[in-house]
Amino acid sequence: MTAAETLPTELTVGYRMTAAGASAQGTLPLSTLVADVIQVATDHANALGVGYSRLIEDGNSWVLSRLTIEVDRMPRINEDYSLTTWIEGFNRHFSERNFELRASGVTIGYMRTVWVAINVATRRPADLSGISHLQSTVSDRRCPIEPQRRIPSPPADMADVYEVIFRSSDIDFNRHVTTTRYMELAVDSLPLELYDRAYTRRFEIAFRHEARWGEAARVITAPVDDDAMDYVTSVALADGTQLCSVRHTLQPVQ
Amino acid sequence: MTAAETLPTELTVGYRMTAAGASAQGTLPLSTLVADVIQVATDHANALGVGYSRLIEDGNSWVLSRLTIEVDRMPRINEDYSLTTWIEGFNRHFSERNFELRASGVTIGYMRTVWVAINVATRRPADLSGISHLQSTVSDRRCPIEPQRRIPSPPADMADVYEVIFRSSDIDFNRHVTTTRYMELAVDSLPLELYDRAYTRRFEIAFRHEARWGEAARVITAPVDDDAMDYVTSVALADGTQLCSVRHTLQPVQ
Repeated sequence: MTAAETLPTELTVGYRMTAAGASAQGTLPLSTLVADVIQVATDHANALGVGYSRLIEDGNSWVLSRLTIEVDRMPRINEDYSLTTWIEGFNRHFSERNFELRASGVTIGYMRTVWVAINVATRRPADLSGISHLQSTVSDRRCPIEPQRRIPSPPADMADVYEVIFRSSDIDFNRHVTTTRYMELAVDSLPLELYDRAYTRRFEIAFRHEARWGEAARVITAPVDDDAMDYVTSVALADGTQLCSVRHTLQPVQ
Repeated sequence: MTAAETLPTELTVGYRMTAAGASAQGTLPLSTLVADVIQVATDHANALGVGYSRLIEDGNSWVLSRLTIEVDRMPRINEDYSLTTWIEGFNRHFSERNFELRASGVTIGYMRTVWVAINVATRRPADLSGISHLQSTVSDRRCPIEPQRRIPSPPADMADVYEVIFRSSDIDFNRHVTTTRYMELAVDSLPLELYDRAYTRRFEIAFRHEARWGEAARVITAPVDDDAMDYVTSVALADGTQLCSVRHTLQPVQ
């Protein structure tokens, strides 16, 4: 990895949406989209020589810190879709990576992600100056959706709560609860019939603390604005430690 | 679809196991393997002209009734793997479809599945004589693993129980709880540390009744034989209606 011109500043991966993997509404589930986003990010980081193998040489690993999704619609059953990723910004503490979602040849959404490198032993933020060549792969391409805003906490007096215990299939190779499970917890805080009449227009999630096998969490959801179908969700341990915060804005299906 | 010789009696699909999708042990999760199995079965049925589109002309749909998995090991991170499927038997009520799992060019397991066609309106078994051309696609190839045995119920006096409520992300396009969610419920009835020292050698699941959004279920697990790491799990509604039965046999990691 020496000459900047040899590094691919974008990567596109194609997928096919199948009936077997569809949501109840016949569209790509939000958690599957995010699994794809993580996969494309991983593939691109590997192609740039800043993937898992390179970071672990310094005892570091990438952790997804923030994710923002904004879509006009989701891919439908039997539809081909693709994700294109590029790096918007990079400094010694974190990297910003964006994604374009296309289906049937048309752009239908964008995602923004923020990744922090942490030391795997101390779980503290790492210093990324060892991979400063990544700077040369920053793209001029802009992402047209707004960056993530501060996510308010659900007000305690008007919150719905359900409890979960994290079990074996919720745990990833880092021994923490998976990103897709957190996505599902937030999606699951709203009833199925809502998703029949409204789709996810914007979804913001901030990951705050890593949870482990056997821990019990409370999923707390409240409307920010009932009329606008705008909700905030917090997933927290019993001692109040917040695991993640979500803001989920839906829009009526036409 | 006229001449038998034009129909592909086998279909092989290739995959790559990635770190982002790995279990805590760095291997392919059982639920992902089953999602792949359903996908390959769907693709092959479509290629044979007996897929969803053809069955729905008669008001019918395929439902997975029984699944048996037996593996020497699971695909590992960064390993390529493939699934090959063929039809072992077919009559007017159900079809038997097998799968070979290969990784790094070596056979590491087999799956047996039994599919029943049901009428989507009545949810009763359908008559498949309208697609009798499927008979000509039955393969002579044998599957070396034993068919599914009768799965005993967990004895009530030595059972571990946990409760779940089925939520939005658990529901598929047929408005029922997904196959992968049932797989996870059974996997999750055993502790993470067990999967660190033993892998799934054989997994049998029989689907008995379809569950819907908002229903509450009890996951009941007991050892058949503690020394042999052999367990049975039942997922049942509060009224005792059994949703699925599982027998899960693990083997110590070398």
